Amino acid sequence: MNRKVINIGLIGFGKVGAGVVKILQDSKKFIGEKIGSPVVLKRIADLDIRTSRGVKVASGVLTADSNLVINDPGIDIVVELTGSESAGKKLILKALSKGKHVVTANKAAVAGSWDEIFSAAGRNKAGFYFEASVGAGIPVIQAIREGLAANRISQIFGIVNGTTNYILTQMARSGRTFDGALSEAKKKGFAEPDPTLDINGSDSMHKIAILSSLAFGSVVRPGDISVEGIEKIDPDDIRYGKEFGYTLKLLAVAKRTDGSVEVRVHPTFLPDSHLLSSVENEFNAIYVVGDLTGPIVLYGRGAGQMSAASAIVSDIIHLGQRIVRGAANGICAPWPGRKKGAGLKINCAKEMKSRCYMRFSVVDSPGVLAKISDILGRNGISIAQVIQKEEKKNNIVPVIMMTHEAVWENIGKALGRIDRLGIVKRKTVLIRVEE
Amino acid sequence: MNRKVINIGLIGFGKVGAGVVKILQDSKKFIGEKIGSPVVLKRIADLDIRTSRGVKVASGVLTADSNLVINDPGIDIVVELTGSESAGKKLILKALSKGKHVVTANKAAVAGSWDEIFSAAGRNKAGFYFEASVGAGIPVIQAIREGLAANRISQIFGIVNGTTNYILTQMARSGRTFDGALSEAKKKGFAEPDPTLDINGSDSMHKIAILSSLAFGSVVRPGDISVEGIEKIDPDDIRYGKEFGYTLKLLAVAKRTDGSVEVRVHPTFLPDSHLLSSVENEFNAIYVVGDLTGPIVLYGRGAGQMSAASAIVSDIIHLGQRIVRGAANGICAPWPGRKKGAGLKINCAKEMKSRCYMRFSVVDSPGVLAKISDILGRNGISIAQVIQKEEKKNNIVPVIMMTHEAVWENIGKALGRIDRLGIVKRKTVLIRVEE
Repeated sequence: MNRKVINIGLIGFGKVGAGVVKILQDSKKFIGEKIGSPVVLKRIADLDIRTSRGVKVASGVLTADSNLVINDPGIDIVVELTGSESAGKKLILKALSKGKHVVTANKAAVAGSWDEIFSAAGRNKAGFYFEASVGAGIPVIQAIREGLAANRISQIFGIVNGTTNYILTQMARSGRTFDGALSEAKKKGFAEPDPTLDINGSDSMHKIAILSSLAFGSVVRPGDISVEGIEKIDPDDIRYGKEFGYTLKLLAVAKRTDGSVEVRVHPTFLPDSHLLSSVENEFNAIYVVGDLTGPIVLYGRGAGQMSAASAIVSDIIHLGQRIVRGAANGICAPWPGRKKGAGLKINCAKEMKSRCYMRFSVVDSPGVLAKISDILGRNGISIAQVIQKEEKKNNIVPVIMMTHEAVWENIGKALGRIDRLGIVKRKTVLIRVEE
Repeated sequence: MNRKVINIGLIGFGKVGAGVVKILQDSKKFIGEKIGSPVVLKRIADLDIRTSRGVKVASGVLTADSNLVINDPGIDIVVELTGSESAGKKLILKALSKGKHVVTANKAAVAGSWDEIFSAAGRNKAGFYFEASVGAGIPVIQAIREGLAANRISQIFGIVNGTTNYILTQMARSGRTFDGALSEAKKKGFAEPDPTLDINGSDSMHKIAILSSLAFGSVVRPGDISVEGIEKIDPDDIRYGKEFGYTLKLLAVAKRTDGSVEVRVHPTFLPDSHLLSSVENEFNAIYVVGDLTGPIVLYGRGAGQMSAASAIVSDIIHLGQRIVRGAANGICAPWPGRKKGAGLKINCAKEMKSRCYMRFSVVDSPGVLAKISDILGRNGISIAQVIQKEEKKNNIVPVIMMTHEAVWENIGKALGRIDRLGIVKRKTVLIRVEE
């Protein structure tokens, strides 16, 4: 207990940054009780030092020069909240190189520069904490890194993006189109003014890259992940899926099979009885299967100013406790004893496999089903269930199939051929299925 | 990285102990990769050194003398799995006094000797880990202690006993009696041959004592907790509750209101829409409300040999990583900066309050309802809903009421008077309600 104060420097004074400042101010005593020493917010750096963030900041604390944070020898922990992958990465690496502990919410920087960041942390005996990067206040990073450490994890399914889950929930409930549900999400504050990175799956991609790198001890890079967003989802497919007993979610999937890993993000039909099927609206949940524990689910609000700030301040408390005891260097890279290159092979999209839902838009004439199933069969895709709907529009009828597990490369080939048939009038809808 | 090996001494070679041994043997390489150093199981102590546990143990490792573990200067971590409160407590304190880190699943010892254990750990700069004591492999201790550390926690609801949850699920599904469902649970291995401590709520009591001591920074002792088991639950009440839209669970409840805390374990009606209502059979879930995160749920298999062993070995990995880096003394008591006596007042049973479900068994005659509601009203208990069932047996009809929130002392007084009325033919059934 030889340290009197833990000094914090914050870089990036946006919404989450303002939340962190508010907590550090409002809960000063409480945080001191948890650490055993007081925490002082010594500096805040942001390019914009004029706009009010709704929190009072003592004069002299705010600066436009992040170097005043990084180079201040009195600062113990740098909290990086720029939200920018490239700027954030540079700041994280600079701070670590100065021996500062770093806490961040920057999922893109963590996912994109995993090796570089952890090497720098290790070299400089600095702690690197990033609980806020996935699921905001849901303590999922810690759960996978520590609480489930004894398990060989075979599977992670994550609903890790609140915007898309809100949109899909509304589409399922009211039959709204994607555009209609998106406007509503914006109105209610569940979608940003520019929601591109949420709806196209990029946000989920960064998050599952982090979770799977932790879980499998092999660095999964964003480029290793097959990603598909929800922009093209038609409410009809949500409704048809329901008839088979499935609920549509944007799922981040990471699976380990003998010696290889596959990681993907895509709209996914899950059985209605699956625990994640009842996760609605803006909520997030992560379903992890360990060999010892079986399935574990963590559920909560995976976004929002205070939920993200909760993760940041919890990381500060955790680090602070260790700094006070001179033991902050005990925070190591995940899998410190794994030899370079000893990781698992990472499958590319072609090698991935899953069950699939397909909706064919075909002319209403005899022999159609035979032609389609013939092509599927020749590509090694076997059909589990078929529904032909009587919903004819412009002489086009939907034929819906659920397949058994099939290799994605084969699915691509088969649909390429099927969509060139004269009897097929629109591009076939393909949605992956998980159980 | 100056340490070559982490030496483990295990005391208590029962089911969970055998699970730990199995993991340490089967996952030797994997655990080494996670820690950065190999783990060696140096000694196992148990009074019974003859019975086979289904795992091979090298000769010379097994001993009947626990002192050979405690006094061995080469042992870094003592894993205490005796399952006995008094023996376990003594062993934990002895091991800590020798500067050894301790990992345990002993909920009764942790809950019963909180202050003593944490003082000893602090004095000796030893780590004390007990993830396995609540929810087995579900990392809930860590979540409350670290992941949610920034939050003022206002509420914990836990389904933390798999046996009782299995029994109540079966009673609800099939209308089975308590005794019928208990025999089935025994047959399927979800109840011990002597399930007393599970069904009378003691097991849940120890667990919620631990969770609330962590969450509120005030030591909640088992004696502070109002406890009621599920032995007297009648399937009729489960059915009637359903008609009001409620599901019956054995709930461990901890609530903080301004300056005081109340902790209780009792059969509880939860709205069907509550996240915990869908937690079925042997599964556990803990619902925690933080001021920053809002509700967080952790779900999984809260019992079983390998799930408990998962928590033990995860604690070993976590500790091992710190020992290797000379930083194991960074593990401090929760709330290290809270002054003695600065904790919250803990309410006694009389002061507690909740909504209630009451089933009166009354004669079928006019004026009955008026008499009962008059006594309730005079005791400050206001009625939210009433159903009078037409299910007459031996001229006794059930009258069911849902009350608004009422103080338990008043409820006790009112029911004492009501049960002495001539029109009331059996002891009134009282079940607490939470939302």
